[in-house]
Amino acid sequence: MDRFDVDETPVNPALLTPVIHQMVRHTSVRHFDPERSLPDGLVEVLVAAAQSASTSSNFQSWSVIQVGDTGRKRTLAELCDRQAFIDQAPLFLVFCADTHRLRWVTRRQGYTFASDYVEMLLVAAIDSALACQNAALAAESLGLGCCMVGAIRNRPREVVELLELPRGVFATIGLAVGYPTVRRPVKPRLPQSVVLHRERYSDGNLEAGVAAYDAKMAGTGTYSGRRVPKPGLPADAPPDSDPYSWAEHTARRMARGHPMRRDLGRFLRDQGFVLDQATTAE
Amino acid sequence: MDRFDVDETPVNPALLTPVIHQMVRHTSVRHFDPERSLPDGLVEVLVAAAQSASTSSNFQSWSVIQVGDTGRKRTLAELCDRQAFIDQAPLFLVFCADTHRLRWVTRRQGYTFASDYVEMLLVAAIDSALACQNAALAAESLGLGCCMVGAIRNRPREVVELLELPRGVFATIGLAVGYPTVRRPVKPRLPQSVVLHRERYSDGNLEAGVAAYDAKMAGTGTYSGRRVPKPGLPADAPPDSDPYSWAEHTARRMARGHPMRRDLGRFLRDQGFVLDQATTAE
Repeated sequence: MDRFDVDETPVNPALLTPVIHQMVRHTSVRHFDPERSLPDGLVEVLVAAAQSASTSSNFQSWSVIQVGDTGRKRTLAELCDRQAFIDQAPLFLVFCADTHRLRWVTRRQGYTFASDYVEMLLVAAIDSALACQNAALAAESLGLGCCMVGAIRNRPREVVELLELPRGVFATIGLAVGYPTVRRPVKPRLPQSVVLHRERYSDGNLEAGVAAYDAKMAGTGTYSGRRVPKPGLPADAPPDSDPYSWAEHTARRMARGHPMRRDLGRFLRDQGFVLDQATTAE
Repeated sequence: MDRFDVDETPVNPALLTPVIHQMVRHTSVRHFDPERSLPDGLVEVLVAAAQSASTSSNFQSWSVIQVGDTGRKRTLAELCDRQAFIDQAPLFLVFCADTHRLRWVTRRQGYTFASDYVEMLLVAAIDSALACQNAALAAESLGLGCCMVGAIRNRPREVVELLELPRGVFATIGLAVGYPTVRRPVKPRLPQSVVLHRERYSDGNLEAGVAAYDAKMAGTGTYSGRRVPKPGLPADAPPDSDPYSWAEHTARRMARGHPMRRDLGRFLRDQGFVLDQATTAE
């Protein structure tokens, strides 16, 4: 079952290249074989794949930290919500938004950096994401499994300290890589009618599309044992018995907010990013 | 010549899957055949590929606007630095960071949105980038060419108006798609020794790596006719004759700042994004 089957998207078979066939089978993997070692040269190939993604103005404003050390992986697993699979994965790559290199090269050439505005944060975060997506798909094409870990932003100061990230650099996405022992089925996504807009943005299909998605997601077991308590209740409140699927799960998360990431802005400022308009003029 | 050749990266041939082979041949395409029409069902396949990328917590906080209308494409080309290839491409996809849908579903379920902090901007921007990278590679695997267009952020208010983007949505990346009439060679990237860090971030290889990269890039012709005037000089100052390659080009850009994007922060606030820590508490 690939994404076309799961999402019931009719597809022109002439368009099914091996690349697309790989993409539409993507599932996040959270169970790795800790015994099976990775092929020689894997990291270099994944980095070449990552570097082959587009990058804004060829700034290449991203870096990746390869973490294989057992103790460091264990610490990162602790910092990322105690997600044990990070520890278990033979390889953990930490993709970073990197403006340090751009600051360094500006100074080296004798100039003063004058790109302190939120656009640079976006450029670097987007560059790191484009790179990470290629690395993940490349790994999957080799029979490996991956899981992107946004929880790398839960305790960003500790990650900076552990990985010795300089000012102007922060971790955007962790990528756990290894041979999968368990593969879950492809997860349904929202209908294309909700995500794809023709010529202009429209909410016209939103209500019906979310309702259909909720009906489908309720059958996947995704939320069993993962019910988020209602906003206002403590995080360890006993589960209620309200109808529960994507909309309710997502709404509760949005209404509670993320307890660890609400202060990311303060961290980013301290780490050398400017979140507002320019402080220097041309 | 693929990325392994261009960047002189030794590669274990056992690791060259069709997917990786496709990635390492990526080049941005800026010349399209306006006569050759796109295959039926292309957009749906590209969206399925995009939806197959990872998304933070299955929030799916992105949308894509398919632009095919000639007048609208012409206007977008104007808004994006007058890049004529946008006009020429039979298809232009505008990837957006989308928190509108999350706000809508929170309200629909009867709750109050409490995720107004910079982390949500990052989640949505990163989601949109992961989706866009898959769509681009999928298109390339079909023999199409693509160019990602960050200039979609040059005049964000006009883009909002043209594409009728609601509050909580903004365009992160444009993607021009079409059959290429000109393909440039694969562009060298910084040596892996600069971008890839082992266990912890290190600047140890930065100076040597950038010097080697400068030597290589100087031979590609990338900067001929594209010299950025020195910081302090007007944008239309006559070109100087200093040594000029990636480091100098990049440093000058960073030292001048981007004239149109320095105010993106103000736009984002007006568009409903919060760029600082939480304003509401759990």
